[in-house]
Amino acid sequence: MDKNSLVECHDRIKPYIHNTPVITSTQINRMTGAEIYFKCDNFQKMGAFKMRGAANAILQLPEDKKANGVVTHSSGNFGQALALAAQSIGVKAYIVMPSNATEIKKTAVKGYGGELIESESNVESREATAQEVVESKGATFIHPSNDNNVILGQGTACKELLEDYNFLEYVITPVGGGGLIAGSALAAKYFGKDCSVIGAEPLVVDDAYRSLKSGKIETNNTTRTIADGLNTQLGDKNFPIIQKEVHSIIRVTEDEIIESMKIIWERLKIVCEPSCSPALAAVLKDKKLFNNKKVGIIISGGNVDLNKLPF
Amino acid sequence: MDKNSLVECHDRIKPYIHNTPVITSTQINRMTGAEIYFKCDNFQKMGAFKMRGAANAILQLPEDKKANGVVTHSSGNFGQALALAAQSIGVKAYIVMPSNATEIKKTAVKGYGGELIESESNVESREATAQEVVESKGATFIHPSNDNNVILGQGTACKELLEDYNFLEYVITPVGGGGLIAGSALAAKYFGKDCSVIGAEPLVVDDAYRSLKSGKIETNNTTRTIADGLNTQLGDKNFPIIQKEVHSIIRVTEDEIIESMKIIWERLKIVCEPSCSPALAAVLKDKKLFNNKKVGIIISGGNVDLNKLPF
Repeated sequence: MDKNSLVECHDRIKPYIHNTPVITSTQINRMTGAEIYFKCDNFQKMGAFKMRGAANAILQLPEDKKANGVVTHSSGNFGQALALAAQSIGVKAYIVMPSNATEIKKTAVKGYGGELIESESNVESREATAQEVVESKGATFIHPSNDNNVILGQGTACKELLEDYNFLEYVITPVGGGGLIAGSALAAKYFGKDCSVIGAEPLVVDDAYRSLKSGKIETNNTTRTIADGLNTQLGDKNFPIIQKEVHSIIRVTEDEIIESMKIIWERLKIVCEPSCSPALAAVLKDKKLFNNKKVGIIISGGNVDLNKLPF
Repeated sequence: MDKNSLVECHDRIKPYIHNTPVITSTQINRMTGAEIYFKCDNFQKMGAFKMRGAANAILQLPEDKKANGVVTHSSGNFGQALALAAQSIGVKAYIVMPSNATEIKKTAVKGYGGELIESESNVESREATAQEVVESKGATFIHPSNDNNVILGQGTACKELLEDYNFLEYVITPVGGGGLIAGSALAAKYFGKDCSVIGAEPLVVDDAYRSLKSGKIETNNTTRTIADGLNTQLGDKNFPIIQKEVHSIIRVTEDEIIESMKIIWERLKIVCEPSCSPALAAVLKDKKLFNNKKVGIIISGGNVDLNKLPF
């Protein structure tokens, strides 16, 4: 995917997304020794960067496909993003979610006009249920992270960041399914001035770190992280981009994730998900690497259950 | 205090404050039936609007007074604000705080370079301790809310809001000591186009509401609100302004305050204090008054103890 495809993607989705603000904190800079620019996609429509990729994927469908709608399986932000993007564009969205997902998440999808379709909670049931919708409705399946149009869309957050702050030496993103980091790496390649993209990953689900070591897509065992948006693995579309373009992946502990989340809330006065927090944790973990460096951090989302905070 | 005094105040403090962002939420607008513009002074330096008034009060001192420093008694945001403003301007600040104040608050004041002086927790001891500093150090006492320079400074948040959104029909602020609402009322008078300022006050500490009814400054009994920044009463400097310029005061319950705080965190993705939340609660309480109206809300601060959240 070349520079022009990212430019065209950004132009295409601009009517459907916010160019989110970038904020800084003197105190966090003092704490880390780095000069950090936080790109706040927690302020993105529906509260996460996933809106970008969802909008691009739908907009790239031919009209006859759009008429039949789109479907995904996601209990997280991508389900909400696809629902809202589809509603904004005027397309039907079917969102497959396990029946044991929280009411908050179900309500959010329905609030954005998505048609909720419940499955069992295992991956097989989710996938089979989505496949049924593809067959019965003619809807197009959109994968949350392993889709070139989604990857390009997610890259626009980093593109916006570098358009405003082209002096950044590093951009750090969390790594889950790989869409955000792959898109960010493309954006840094095309719009940065010698800007390296680094991934931040929970130690307990370090599949991406191990994948880069082994050269093939690794999976996680059943261990779960508080950064629940990162309980996923890379795919065959984004892994080659990550292999080629990403500088490295820094792994952080659960305690480090929670501590960084607290720092973000207390110092930046913003609500972010645990899944955002590994990026700041990585800077705190490797102070030597980032000392006196200009670092961008993508705050990936702000959809938090306030009744289940880790502090 | 005329229009020019507010313009001069704003010019004077600009090097020491942020012009904070204004954010909106389609969903909150749908929920309330109003069109709300949130002025985010939780993103102000040290995390609250109090920075504005503190900076102005110090900058208005003659040089010989500045040389002896400033003193206040506050266990809340004004103590931190005076410490940081003084540090920024190059003046010594003595902050009297009860010895039983939380470590977080003590650390914050010291972190901003303030000299912490502990007192007993009753008002008499705080005032006597501050008076001792005035006498022994020659420091100037700055009141957190009942001081014309503080009132003017606090008014600059509303001035900034109206400079960007001059079509606002109402601006709502929380009411505690009266500095913010008095300053906002002056700003609305001079910079609004027929813009009314409304106060929002916890029902359990509704001294300002009762003061407007009775025509004299009323006090609260010992009842405490979760909006702990509002556990204060008006003063002889700000009360006449409030009497003359404020439209009305809307009282809200503790449950309404917590519910509004949750809506702000969930929808706006920002961290705000309970003391901010009565303003949105007022819109939800009196939907008829605000129906289809363009309403500004001052988000007054974001310094929250994350270990003591009400949800």
